[in-house]
Amino acid sequence: MPPSRIAIVGVGLIGGSLARALKRAGECVAGYDTDPMALRRACELGVIDEPCADLSRAVEGAEIVVIAVPLGAVAEIFQGLAGHLDEHAVITDVGSVKGSVVHAAHRYLEQHLSRFVPGHPIAGTEHSGVESSCAGLFHGQRVILTPLAETDPRALERVRLLWRQTGAVVEDMGIDRHDQVFAATSHLPHVLAYALVRAAERVSGRSALVRYAGGGFADITRIASSNPGIWRDIFFANRARLIEMIERFREDLALLRDAIETEDGPAVVAFLDAAKNTRDALAAEQRIGADLVGEKKR
Amino acid sequence: MPPSRIAIVGVGLIGGSLARALKRAGECVAGYDTDPMALRRACELGVIDEPCADLSRAVEGAEIVVIAVPLGAVAEIFQGLAGHLDEHAVITDVGSVKGSVVHAAHRYLEQHLSRFVPGHPIAGTEHSGVESSCAGLFHGQRVILTPLAETDPRALERVRLLWRQTGAVVEDMGIDRHDQVFAATSHLPHVLAYALVRAAERVSGRSALVRYAGGGFADITRIASSNPGIWRDIFFANRARLIEMIERFREDLALLRDAIETEDGPAVVAFLDAAKNTRDALAAEQRIGADLVGEKKR
Repeated sequence: MPPSRIAIVGVGLIGGSLARALKRAGECVAGYDTDPMALRRACELGVIDEPCADLSRAVEGAEIVVIAVPLGAVAEIFQGLAGHLDEHAVITDVGSVKGSVVHAAHRYLEQHLSRFVPGHPIAGTEHSGVESSCAGLFHGQRVILTPLAETDPRALERVRLLWRQTGAVVEDMGIDRHDQVFAATSHLPHVLAYALVRAAERVSGRSALVRYAGGGFADITRIASSNPGIWRDIFFANRARLIEMIERFREDLALLRDAIETEDGPAVVAFLDAAKNTRDALAAEQRIGADLVGEKKR
Repeated sequence: MPPSRIAIVGVGLIGGSLARALKRAGECVAGYDTDPMALRRACELGVIDEPCADLSRAVEGAEIVVIAVPLGAVAEIFQGLAGHLDEHAVITDVGSVKGSVVHAAHRYLEQHLSRFVPGHPIAGTEHSGVESSCAGLFHGQRVILTPLAETDPRALERVRLLWRQTGAVVEDMGIDRHDQVFAATSHLPHVLAYALVRAAERVSGRSALVRYAGGGFADITRIASSNPGIWRDIFFANRARLIEMIERFREDLALLRDAIETEDGPAVVAFLDAAKNTRDALAAEQRIGADLVGEKKR
Protein backbone atom coordinates (compact mmCIF):
# COMPACT_ATOMS: atom_id res chain seq x y z
CA MET A 1 0.00 0.00 0.00
CA PRO A 2 1.40 3.44 -0.89
CA PRO A 3 1.62 5.82 2.07
CA SER A 4 -1.46 7.95 2.73
CA ARG A 5 -1.10 11.69 2.74
CA ILE A 6 -2.23 12.88 6.14
CA ALA A 7 -2.54 16.54 7.06
CA ILE A 8 -2.06 17.58 10.67
CA VAL A 9 -3.37 21.03 11.51
CA GLY A 10 -1.64 22.25 14.67
CA VAL A 11 1.75 20.68 15.43
CA GLY A 12 1.81 20.97 19.24
CA LEU A 13 2.24 18.14 21.74
CA ILE A 14 -0.69 16.07 20.43
CA GLY A 15 -0.43 16.91 16.71
CA GLY A 16 3.36 16.51 16.79
CA SER A 17 3.21 13.18 18.63
CA LEU A 18 0.60 11.86 16.20
CA ALA A 19 2.76 13.00 13.25
CA ARG A 20 5.79 11.19 14.69
CA ALA A 21 3.82 7.97 15.27
CA LEU A 22 2.32 8.04 11.76
CA LYS A 23 5.66 8.71 10.09
CA ARG A 24 7.11 5.79 12.02
CA ALA A 25 4.23 3.71 10.61
CA GLY A 26 5.28 4.72 7.08
CA GLU A 27 2.74 7.46 6.36
CA CYS A 28 3.45 10.80 4.70
CA VAL A 29 2.56 13.71 6.97
CA ALA A 30 1.97 17.33 5.97
CA GLY A 31 1.81 19.87 8.78
CA TYR A 32 0.25 23.28 9.23
CA ASP A 33 0.41 25.67 12.17
CA THR A 34 -0.64 29.30 12.60
CA ASP A 35 2.67 29.76 14.44
CA PRO A 36 5.50 29.78 11.83
CA MET A 37 8.09 29.08 14.55
CA ALA A 38 6.26 25.92 15.66
CA LEU A 39 6.08 24.79 12.03
CA ARG A 40 9.82 25.39 11.55
CA ARG A 41 10.64 23.51 14.75
CA ALA A 42 8.43 20.60 13.67
CA CYS A 43 10.39 20.46 10.44
CA GLU A 44 13.81 20.72 12.10
CA LEU A 45 12.88 17.97 14.54
CA GLY A 46 11.73 15.71 11.69
CA VAL A 47 8.22 15.56 13.10
CA ILE A 48 6.54 16.19 9.73
CA ASP A 49 7.52 15.50 6.10
CA GLU A 50 6.11 18.63 4.58
CA PRO A 51 5.58 22.00 6.29
CA CYS A 52 2.79 24.10 4.77
CA ALA A 53 2.56 27.80 5.57
CA ASP A 54 -0.93 27.71 4.13
CA LEU A 55 -3.94 25.74 5.40
CA SER A 56 -5.37 25.06 1.93
CA ARG A 57 -1.98 23.72 0.72
CA ALA A 58 -1.72 21.41 3.73
CA VAL A 59 -5.08 19.73 3.21
CA GLU A 60 -4.87 19.54 -0.60
CA GLY A 61 -5.09 15.89 -1.62
CA ALA A 62 -5.01 14.72 2.00
CA GLU A 63 -6.85 11.48 2.68
CA ILE A 64 -7.24 12.42 6.34
CA VAL A 65 -7.16 15.83 7.99
CA VAL A 66 -6.51 15.87 11.74
CA ILE A 67 -7.40 19.07 13.61
CA ALA A 68 -5.08 19.32 16.62
CA VAL A 69 -5.43 22.98 17.63
CA PRO A 70 -6.61 24.35 21.01
CA LEU A 71 -10.41 24.09 21.35
CA GLY A 72 -10.88 27.85 21.04
CA ALA A 73 -9.39 27.77 17.52
CA VAL A 74 -11.34 24.80 16.14
CA ALA A 75 -14.32 26.73 14.71
CA GLU A 76 -12.05 29.12 12.84
CA ILE A 77 -10.03 26.24 11.36
CA PHE A 78 -13.25 24.47 10.28
CA GLN A 79 -14.31 27.68 8.58
CA GLY A 80 -10.94 27.96 6.85
CA LEU A 81 -11.10 24.34 5.65
CA ALA A 82 -14.46 24.50 3.91
CA GLY A 83 -13.90 24.71 0.18
CA HIS A 84 -10.35 23.35 0.30
CA LEU A 85 -11.03 19.78 1.37
CA ASP A 86 -10.82 16.88 -1.03
CA GLU A 87 -14.38 15.56 -1.43
CA HIS A 88 -13.37 12.14 -0.06
CA ALA A 89 -11.25 13.52 2.78
CA VAL A 90 -11.95 12.17 6.24
CA ILE A 91 -11.77 14.82 9.00
CA THR A 92 -11.10 14.15 12.66
CA ASP A 93 -9.99 16.13 15.70
CA VAL A 94 -8.35 15.60 19.09
CA GLY A 95 -10.32 18.02 21.29
CA SER A 96 -10.88 17.21 24.98
CA VAL A 97 -14.50 18.37 24.67
CA LYS A 98 -16.72 16.93 21.95
CA GLY A 99 -20.01 18.86 22.16
CA SER A 100 -18.48 22.20 21.21
CA VAL A 101 -16.49 20.68 18.33
CA VAL A 102 -19.56 18.91 16.95
CA HIS A 103 -21.49 22.17 17.22
CA ALA A 104 -18.82 23.95 15.15
CA ALA A 105 -18.77 21.08 12.62
CA HIS A 106 -22.52 21.36 12.10
CA ARG A 107 -22.04 25.05 11.45
CA TYR A 108 -18.99 25.05 9.16
CA LEU A 109 -18.48 21.53 7.79
CA GLU A 110 -22.01 20.69 6.72
CA GLN A 111 -20.86 19.40 3.31
CA HIS A 112 -18.38 17.06 4.98
CA LEU A 113 -20.37 15.95 8.03
CA SER A 114 -20.60 12.30 6.90
CA ARG A 115 -16.80 12.11 6.85
CA PHE A 116 -16.24 13.92 10.15
CA VAL A 117 -15.25 11.68 13.09
CA PRO A 118 -14.81 13.53 16.41
CA GLY A 119 -12.00 12.04 18.51
CA HIS A 120 -10.18 12.45 21.81
CA PRO A 121 -6.91 10.70 22.66
CA ILE A 122 -6.64 10.25 26.45
CA ALA A 123 -2.98 11.11 26.55
CA GLY A 124 -0.83 14.10 27.23
CA THR A 125 1.49 15.54 29.82
CA GLU A 126 1.63 18.86 31.65
CA HIS A 127 4.03 20.01 28.92
CA SER A 128 2.90 21.42 25.60
CA GLY A 129 4.46 22.25 22.26
CA VAL A 130 6.11 20.23 19.51
CA GLU A 131 9.38 20.00 21.51
CA SER A 132 7.59 17.73 24.00
CA SER A 133 6.09 15.48 21.32
CA CYS A 134 7.04 11.80 21.09
CA ALA A 135 6.04 8.91 18.86
CA GLY A 136 5.08 6.70 21.82
CA LEU A 137 2.67 9.13 23.50
CA PHE A 138 -0.45 7.19 22.49
CA HIS A 139 0.95 3.67 22.80
CA GLY A 140 -1.38 1.64 25.00
CA GLN A 141 -3.54 4.71 25.74
CA ARG A 142 -7.23 4.99 24.97
CA VAL A 143 -8.63 7.08 22.12
CA ILE A 144 -12.34 7.85 22.29
CA LEU A 145 -14.29 8.43 19.07
CA THR A 146 -17.76 9.98 19.25
CA PRO A 147 -19.26 9.42 15.77
CA LEU A 148 -22.30 11.48 14.70
CA ALA A 149 -25.54 10.02 13.42
CA GLU A 150 -24.33 11.24 10.00
CA THR A 151 -20.88 9.64 10.20
CA ASP A 152 -20.12 7.19 7.36
CA PRO A 153 -18.96 3.84 8.88
CA ARG A 154 -16.03 3.80 6.42
CA ALA A 155 -14.82 7.18 7.71
CA LEU A 156 -15.12 5.88 11.27
CA GLU A 157 -13.15 2.77 10.35
CA ARG A 158 -10.44 4.87 8.68
CA VAL A 159 -9.95 6.99 11.82
CA ARG A 160 -9.89 3.85 13.98
CA LEU A 161 -7.10 2.52 11.78
CA LEU A 162 -5.21 5.82 12.04
CA TRP A 163 -5.12 5.61 15.82
CA ARG A 164 -4.34 1.90 15.88
CA GLN A 165 -1.22 2.76 13.89
CA THR A 166 -0.03 4.72 16.97
CA GLY A 167 -0.59 1.73 19.28
CA ALA A 168 -3.69 3.25 20.87
CA VAL A 169 -6.77 1.34 22.02
CA VAL A 170 -9.79 2.84 20.22
CA GLU A 171 -13.36 2.89 21.49
CA ASP A 172 -16.62 4.71 20.79
CA MET A 173 -18.73 6.79 23.16
CA GLY A 174 -21.72 9.12 22.96
CA ILE A 175 -20.91 12.84 22.76
CA ASP A 176 -22.81 13.86 25.91
CA ARG A 177 -21.53 10.95 27.92
CA HIS A 178 -17.96 11.80 26.84
CA ASP A 179 -18.25 15.39 27.99
CA GLN A 180 -19.77 14.33 31.31
CA VAL A 181 -17.13 11.69 32.04
CA PHE A 182 -14.26 14.04 31.19
CA ALA A 183 -15.72 16.92 33.18
CA ALA A 184 -15.44 14.53 36.14
CA THR A 185 -12.12 12.81 35.42
CA SER A 186 -10.13 15.59 33.78
CA HIS A 187 -11.63 19.09 33.70
CA LEU A 188 -12.64 19.28 37.38
CA PRO A 189 -9.23 17.90 38.53
CA HIS A 190 -7.50 20.67 36.59
CA VAL A 191 -9.72 23.33 38.20
CA LEU A 192 -8.94 21.90 41.65
CA ALA A 193 -5.19 21.71 41.04
CA TYR A 194 -5.00 25.35 39.92
CA ALA A 195 -7.19 26.51 42.84
CA LEU A 196 -5.19 24.44 45.35
CA VAL A 197 -1.88 26.01 44.31
CA ARG A 198 -3.39 29.47 44.76
CA ALA A 199 -4.96 28.72 48.16
CA ALA A 200 -1.84 27.01 49.52
CA GLU A 201 0.39 29.85 48.33
CA ARG A 202 -1.94 32.44 49.86
CA VAL A 203 -1.83 30.79 53.28
CA SER A 204 1.72 29.44 53.57
CA GLY A 205 3.52 31.93 51.32
CA ARG A 206 5.36 30.98 48.16
CA SER A 207 8.78 30.21 49.64
CA ALA A 208 7.40 27.88 52.34
CA LEU A 209 5.20 26.21 49.75
CA VAL A 210 8.12 25.58 47.41
CA ARG A 211 10.30 24.44 50.32
CA TYR A 212 8.01 22.15 52.28
CA ALA A 213 5.61 20.75 49.72
CA GLY A 214 6.11 16.99 49.79
CA GLY A 215 5.70 14.52 46.95
CA GLY A 216 1.95 14.41 47.60
CA PHE A 217 1.55 18.11 46.86
CA ALA A 218 3.78 17.86 43.80
CA ASP A 219 1.65 15.02 42.41
CA ILE A 220 -1.71 16.55 43.16
CA THR A 221 -0.72 19.84 41.51
CA ARG A 222 1.28 18.46 38.57
CA ILE A 223 -1.54 19.29 36.16
CA ALA A 224 -1.49 22.92 37.37
CA SER A 225 1.69 23.19 35.28
CA SER A 226 -0.47 22.68 32.16
CA ASN A 227 -0.82 25.36 29.49
CA PRO A 228 -3.27 28.09 30.65
CA GLY A 229 -4.53 28.99 27.16
CA ILE A 230 -5.34 25.39 26.27
CA TRP A 231 -7.17 24.85 29.56
CA ARG A 232 -9.11 28.13 29.41
CA ASP A 233 -10.44 26.85 26.07
CA ILE A 234 -11.35 23.44 27.52
CA PHE A 235 -13.09 25.01 30.55
CA PHE A 236 -15.14 27.30 28.29
CA ALA A 237 -15.94 24.55 25.77
CA ASN A 238 -17.39 22.31 28.50
CA ARG A 239 -18.59 25.18 30.69
CA ALA A 240 -22.08 24.05 31.71
CA ARG A 241 -20.99 20.52 32.60
CA LEU A 242 -17.88 21.74 34.40
CA ILE A 243 -19.85 24.24 36.52
CA GLU A 244 -22.28 21.43 37.39
CA MET A 245 -19.34 19.18 38.28
CA ILE A 246 -17.80 21.87 40.51
CA GLU A 247 -21.13 22.03 42.36
CA ARG A 248 -21.15 18.24 42.86
CA PHE A 249 -17.60 18.47 44.19
CA ARG A 250 -18.52 21.27 46.58
CA GLU A 251 -21.26 19.08 48.02
CA ASP A 252 -18.83 16.25 48.70
CA LEU A 253 -16.22 18.63 50.10
CA ALA A 254 -18.85 20.10 52.45
CA LEU A 255 -19.81 16.60 53.60
CA LEU A 256 -16.23 15.73 54.51
CA ARG A 257 -15.61 19.17 56.00
CA ASP A 258 -18.65 18.85 58.28
CA ALA A 259 -17.63 15.36 59.43
CA ILE A 260 -14.17 16.74 60.30
CA GLU A 261 -15.60 19.80 62.06
CA THR A 262 -17.89 17.69 64.24
CA GLU A 263 -15.12 15.08 64.76
CA ASP A 264 -17.43 12.36 63.48
CA GLY A 265 -14.80 9.62 63.26
CA PRO A 266 -16.96 6.87 61.71
CA ALA A 267 -18.30 9.28 59.04
CA VAL A 268 -14.79 10.47 58.13
CA VAL A 269 -13.43 6.93 57.92
CA ALA A 270 -16.41 5.73 55.84
CA PHE A 271 -15.84 8.64 53.42
CA LEU A 272 -12.09 8.02 53.13
CA ASP A 273 -12.52 4.24 52.91
CA ALA A 274 -14.93 4.46 49.98
CA ALA A 275 -12.63 6.87 48.12
CA LYS A 276 -9.55 4.75 48.82
CA ASN A 277 -11.36 1.68 47.59
CA THR A 278 -12.18 3.32 44.24
CA ARG A 279 -8.70 4.87 43.93
CA ASP A 280 -7.08 1.48 44.60
CA ALA A 281 -9.25 -0.10 41.88
CA LEU A 282 -8.12 2.63 39.49
CA ALA A 283 -4.44 2.03 40.34
CA ALA A 284 -4.91 -1.72 39.79
CA GLU A 285 -6.55 -1.08 36.39
CA GLN A 286 -3.68 1.17 35.37
CA ARG A 287 -1.13 -1.43 36.45
CA ILE A 288 -2.92 -4.00 34.29
CA GLY A 289 -2.90 -1.48 31.42
CA ALA A 290 0.82 -0.85 31.88
CA ASP A 291 1.48 -4.60 31.90
CA LEU A 292 -0.47 -5.04 28.66
CA VAL A 293 1.59 -2.29 27.03
CA GLY A 294 4.75 -3.97 28.32
CA GLU A 295 3.49 -7.21 26.78
CA LYS A 296 2.99 -5.58 23.41
CA LYS A 297 6.36 -3.88 23.54
CA ARG A 298 8.17 -7.16 24.18
CA MET B 1 31.26 4.59 69.87
CA PRO B 2 29.09 1.70 71.05
CA PRO B 3 25.69 1.55 69.37
CA SER B 4 22.91 3.51 71.07
CA ARG B 5 19.81 1.66 72.16
CA ILE B 6 16.92 3.31 70.38
CA ALA B 7 13.29 2.38 71.02
CA ILE B 8 10.77 2.77 68.25
CA VAL B 9 7.16 2.76 69.38
CA GLY B 10 4.97 1.88 66.40
CA VAL B 11 6.66 -0.10 63.60
CA GLY B 12 4.58 1.03 60.60
CA LEU B 13 5.85 2.69 57.41
CA ILE B 14 7.61 5.56 59.20
CA GLY B 15 8.76 3.75 62.35
CA GLY B 16 9.87 0.72 60.30
CA SER B 17 11.77 2.85 57.78
CA LEU B 18 13.51 4.77 60.56
CA ALA B 19 14.44 1.47 62.25
CA ARG B 20 15.92 0.15 59.00
CA ALA B 21 17.94 3.33 58.43
CA LEU B 22 19.26 3.38 62.02
CA LYS B 23 20.21 -0.30 61.93
CA ARG B 24 22.06 0.34 58.69
CA ALA B 25 23.90 3.15 60.53
CA GLY B 26 24.97 0.64 63.19
CA GLU B 27 22.46 1.41 65.95
CA CYS B 28 20.60 -1.13 68.05
CA VAL B 29 16.84 -0.80 67.65
CA ALA B 30 14.14 -2.12 69.96
CA GLY B 31 10.59 -2.08 68.63
CA TYR B 32 7.14 -2.03 70.20
CA ASP B 33 3.72 -2.13 68.56
CA THR B 34 0.22 -2.60 69.95
CA ASP B 35 -0.36 -4.95 67.00
CA PRO B 36 1.49 -8.24 67.72
CA MET B 37 1.33 -9.20 64.02
CA ALA B 38 3.09 -5.99 62.98
CA LEU B 39 5.76 -6.60 65.60
CA ARG B 40 6.29 -10.16 64.37
CA ARG B 41 6.49 -9.00 60.74
CA ALA B 42 9.02 -6.31 61.72
CA CYS B 43 11.15 -9.02 63.30
CA GLU B 44 10.84 -11.45 60.38
CA LEU B 45 11.78 -8.68 57.94
CA GLY B 46 14.83 -7.77 60.04
CA VAL B 47 13.52 -4.25 60.57
CA ILE B 48 14.25 -4.24 64.32
CA ASP B 49 16.81 -6.02 66.50
CA GLU B 50 14.59 -6.66 69.49
CA PRO B 51 10.80 -7.00 69.52
CA CYS B 52 9.17 -6.03 72.82
CA ALA B 53 5.60 -7.08 73.54
CA ASP B 54 5.61 -4.60 76.37
CA LEU B 55 6.02 -0.80 76.14
CA SER B 56 7.98 -0.50 79.40
CA ARG B 57 10.43 -3.22 78.26
CA ALA B 58 10.98 -1.47 74.93
CA VAL B 59 11.93 1.89 76.42
CA GLU B 60 13.97 0.48 79.33
CA GLY B 61 17.52 1.85 79.03
CA ALA B 62 16.76 3.49 75.69
CA GLU B 63 18.78 6.61 74.94
CA ILE B 64 16.11 7.80 72.51
CA VAL B 65 12.45 6.88 72.30
CA VAL B 66 10.73 7.59 68.98
CA ILE B 67 6.93 7.67 69.01
CA ALA B 68 5.75 6.64 65.52
CA VAL B 69 2.09 5.77 66.10
CA PRO B 70 -0.97 7.36 64.43
CA LEU B 71 -1.73 10.79 65.94
CA GLY B 72 -4.87 9.54 67.68
CA ALA B 73 -2.78 7.10 69.76
CA VAL B 74 0.00 9.52 70.83
CA ALA B 75 -1.58 10.74 74.09
CA GLU B 76 -2.21 7.19 75.29
CA ILE B 77 1.39 6.18 74.51
CA PHE B 78 2.73 9.26 76.36
CA GLN B 79 0.60 8.25 79.33
CA GLY B 80 1.95 4.70 79.16
CA LEU B 81 5.55 5.91 78.97
CA ALA B 82 5.54 8.09 82.08
CA GLY B 83 7.28 6.25 84.89
CA HIS B 84 9.13 3.85 82.56
CA LEU B 85 11.50 6.27 80.83
CA ASP B 86 15.17 6.47 81.69
CA GLU B 87 15.70 9.87 83.32
CA HIS B 88 18.14 10.91 80.57
CA ALA B 89 16.05 9.51 77.71
CA VAL B 90 15.35 11.84 74.80
CA ILE B 91 11.83 11.53 73.41
CA THR B 92 10.76 12.49 69.90
CA ASP B 93 7.84 11.78 67.59
CA VAL B 94 6.99 11.78 63.86
CA GLY B 95 3.45 13.20 63.88
CA SER B 96 2.22 15.27 60.92
CA VAL B 97 0.61 17.75 63.34
CA LYS B 98 2.67 19.27 66.12
CA GLY B 99 0.22 21.35 68.21
CA SER B 100 -1.81 18.34 69.37
CA VAL B 101 1.31 16.30 70.18
CA VAL B 102 2.81 19.17 72.21
CA HIS B 103 -0.50 19.54 74.05
CA ALA B 104 -0.41 15.84 75.01
CA ALA B 105 3.25 16.12 76.04
CA HIS B 106 2.46 19.00 78.38
CA ARG B 107 -0.24 16.85 79.91
CA TYR B 108 1.52 13.49 80.25
CA LEU B 109 5.27 14.04 79.91
CA GLU B 110 5.76 17.01 82.23
CA GLN B 111 8.75 15.40 83.98
CA HIS B 112 10.45 14.83 80.62
CA LEU B 113 9.48 18.00 78.76
CA SER B 114 13.06 19.33 78.57
CA ARG B 115 14.08 16.17 76.68
CA PHE B 116 11.07 16.08 74.35
CA VAL B 117 11.73 17.17 70.75
CA PRO B 118 8.63 17.18 68.50
CA GLY B 119 9.49 16.11 64.94
CA HIS B 120 7.94 15.55 61.51
CA PRO B 121 9.72 13.79 58.65
CA ILE B 122 8.32 15.06 55.31
CA ALA B 123 8.32 11.64 53.73
CA GLY B 124 5.93 8.83 53.14
CA THR B 125 3.95 7.17 50.41
CA GLU B 126 0.28 6.30 49.99
CA HIS B 127 1.17 2.86 51.40
CA SER B 128 1.33 2.11 55.10
CA GLY B 129 2.59 -0.70 57.32
CA VAL B 130 5.99 -2.22 58.02
CA GLU B 131 5.91 -4.19 54.74
CA SER B 132 6.25 -0.89 52.84
CA SER B 133 9.14 0.39 54.98
CA CYS B 134 12.56 1.01 53.44
CA ALA B 135 15.87 2.30 54.76
CA GLY B 136 16.11 5.03 52.10
CA LEU B 137 12.71 6.64 52.75
CA PHE B 138 14.16 9.74 54.43
CA HIS B 139 17.28 10.11 52.30
CA GLY B 140 17.43 13.67 50.99
CA GLN B 141 14.01 14.47 52.51
CA ARG B 142 13.36 17.22 55.03
CA VAL B 143 12.67 16.55 58.70
CA ILE B 144 11.12 19.44 60.65
CA LEU B 145 11.79 19.73 64.37
CA THR B 146 9.64 22.10 66.46
CA PRO B 147 11.49 22.41 69.80
CA LEU B 148 9.60 23.77 72.84
CA ALA B 149 10.78 26.68 74.97
CA GLU B 150 11.65 23.99 77.53
CA THR B 151 13.66 21.79 75.15
CA ASP B 152 17.28 21.19 76.24
CA PRO B 153 19.62 22.10 73.34
CA ARG B 154 21.49 18.79 73.84
CA ALA B 155 18.25 16.83 73.36
CA LEU B 156 17.55 18.83 70.19
CA GLU B 157 21.05 18.13 68.91
CA ARG B 158 20.69 14.41 69.63
CA VAL B 159 17.47 14.19 67.60
CA ARG B 160 19.09 16.17 64.77
CA LEU B 161 21.89 13.61 64.72
CA LEU B 162 19.38 10.74 64.71
CA TRP B 163 17.73 12.05 61.55
CA ARG B 164 21.01 12.94 59.87
CA GLN B 165 21.93 9.26 60.23
CA THR B 166 19.04 8.52 57.84
CA GLY B 167 20.32 10.98 55.24
CA ALA B 168 17.60 13.54 55.98
CA VAL B 169 17.99 17.33 55.93
CA VAL B 170 16.93 18.64 59.35
CA GLU B 171 15.51 22.08 60.09
CA ASP B 172 13.60 23.83 62.87
CA MET B 173 10.23 25.57 62.70
CA GLY B 174 7.71 27.05 65.12
CA ILE B 175 4.84 24.78 66.15
CA ASP B 176 2.02 27.05 64.90
CA ARG B 177 3.78 27.84 61.65
CA HIS B 178 4.36 24.11 61.06
CA ASP B 179 0.70 23.27 61.51
CA GLN B 180 -0.33 26.14 59.23
CA VAL B 181 2.10 25.24 56.43
CA PHE B 182 1.15 21.55 56.50
CA ALA B 183 -2.58 22.29 56.61
CA ALA B 184 -1.95 24.04 53.27
CA THR B 185 0.58 21.70 51.65
CA SER B 186 -0.54 18.30 52.93
CA HIS B 187 -3.79 18.09 54.92
CA LEU B 188 -5.95 20.13 52.51
CA PRO B 189 -4.61 18.23 49.45
CA HIS B 190 -5.63 14.95 51.09
CA VAL B 191 -9.14 16.27 51.80
CA LEU B 192 -9.45 17.38 48.16
CA ALA B 193 -8.18 14.09 46.76
CA TYR B 194 -10.67 12.03 48.78
CA ALA B 195 -13.55 14.40 47.91
CA LEU B 196 -12.60 14.41 44.21
CA VAL B 197 -12.69 10.62 43.96
CA ARG B 198 -16.16 10.62 45.52
CA ALA B 199 -17.53 13.41 43.31
CA ALA B 200 -16.08 11.94 40.11
CA GLU B 201 -17.42 8.48 40.95
CA ARG B 202 -20.87 9.89 41.74
CA VAL B 203 -21.11 11.64 38.37
CA SER B 204 -19.35 9.29 35.95
CA GLY B 205 -19.96 5.98 37.74
CA ARG B 206 -17.20 3.75 39.04
CA SER B 207 -16.55 1.69 35.92
CA ALA B 208 -16.20 4.73 33.64
CA LEU B 209 -13.98 6.40 36.22
CA VAL B 210 -11.67 3.41 36.46
CA ARG B 211 -11.68 3.01 32.67
CA TYR B 212 -11.19 6.56 31.44
CA ALA B 213 -9.27 8.31 34.19
CA GLY B 214 -6.03 9.49 32.61
CA GLY B 215 -2.64 9.87 34.25
CA GLY B 216 -3.67 13.31 35.52
CA PHE B 217 -6.53 11.86 37.56
CA ALA B 218 -4.34 9.04 38.84
CA ASP B 219 -1.72 11.55 40.03
CA ILE B 220 -4.11 14.01 41.60
CA THR B 221 -5.86 11.25 43.54
CA ARG B 222 -2.82 9.13 44.45
CA ILE B 223 -2.94 10.36 48.04
CA ALA B 224 -6.59 9.22 48.29
CA SER B 225 -5.12 5.72 48.51
CA SER B 226 -3.63 6.68 51.90
CA ASN B 227 -4.66 4.95 55.12
CA PRO B 228 -8.08 6.28 56.31
CA GLY B 229 -7.42 5.79 60.05
CA ILE B 230 -4.12 7.67 59.93
CA TRP B 231 -5.68 10.54 58.00
CA ARG B 232 -8.77 10.78 60.19
CA ASP B 233 -6.36 11.30 63.10
CA ILE B 234 -4.38 13.98 61.21
CA PHE B 235 -7.56 15.82 60.15
CA PHE B 236 -8.83 15.84 63.76
CA ALA B 237 -5.46 16.78 65.27
CA ASN B 238 -5.22 19.86 63.00
CA ARG B 239 -8.96 20.43 62.80
CA ALA B 240 -9.25 24.19 63.32
CA ARG B 241 -6.47 25.04 60.85
CA LEU B 242 -7.72 22.52 58.31
CA ILE B 243 -11.29 23.88 58.43
CA GLU B 244 -9.86 27.38 57.97
CA MET B 245 -7.76 26.13 55.03
CA ILE B 246 -10.79 24.48 53.41
CA GLU B 247 -12.55 27.86 53.61
CA ARG B 248 -9.60 29.63 51.93
CA PHE B 249 -9.68 26.97 49.21
CA ARG B 250 -13.42 27.40 48.68
CA GLU B 251 -12.88 31.11 48.12
CA ASP B 252 -10.28 30.47 45.43
CA LEU B 253 -12.42 27.77 43.84
CA ALA B 254 -15.38 30.18 43.74
CA LEU B 255 -13.19 32.82 42.09
CA LEU B 256 -12.13 30.47 39.30
CA ARG B 257 -15.63 29.02 38.99
CA ASP B 258 -17.13 32.50 38.54
CA ALA B 259 -14.53 33.45 35.93
CA ILE B 260 -15.38 30.27 33.99
CA GLU B 261 -19.13 30.80 34.31
CA THR B 262 -18.92 34.36 32.97
CA GLU B 263 -16.36 33.28 30.32
CA ASP B 264 -13.94 35.92 31.54
CA GLY B 265 -10.93 34.75 29.51
CA PRO B 266 -8.33 37.19 30.88
CA ALA B 267 -9.35 36.42 34.50
CA VAL B 268 -9.14 32.66 33.91
CA VAL B 269 -5.75 32.90 32.20
CA ALA B 270 -4.37 35.20 34.94
CA PHE B 271 -5.52 32.69 37.59
CA LEU B 272 -4.04 29.69 35.77
CA ASP B 273 -0.82 31.55 34.87
CA ALA B 274 -0.10 32.49 38.49
CA ALA B 275 -0.74 28.92 39.67
CA LYS B 276 1.38 27.44 36.87
CA ASN B 277 4.19 29.83 37.72
CA THR B 278 4.25 28.69 41.35
CA ARG B 279 3.86 25.01 40.43
CA ASP B 280 6.74 25.28 37.95
CA ALA B 281 8.94 26.85 40.67
CA LEU B 282 8.04 23.95 42.96
CA ALA B 283 8.94 21.39 40.27
CA ALA B 284 12.27 23.17 39.66
CA GLU B 285 13.04 23.12 43.41
CA GLN B 286 12.27 19.41 43.61
CA ARG B 287 14.50 18.70 40.60
CA ILE B 288 17.33 20.57 42.35
CA GLY B 289 16.61 18.56 45.51
CA ALA B 290 16.68 15.29 43.55
CA ASP B 291 19.99 16.31 41.94
CA LEU B 292 21.50 17.06 45.34
CA VAL B 293 20.45 13.64 46.60
CA GLY B 294 21.97 12.10 43.48
CA GLU B 295 25.17 14.02 44.23
CA LYS B 296 25.31 12.63 47.76
CA LYS B 297 24.63 9.11 46.57
CA ARG B 298 27.53 9.20 44.13
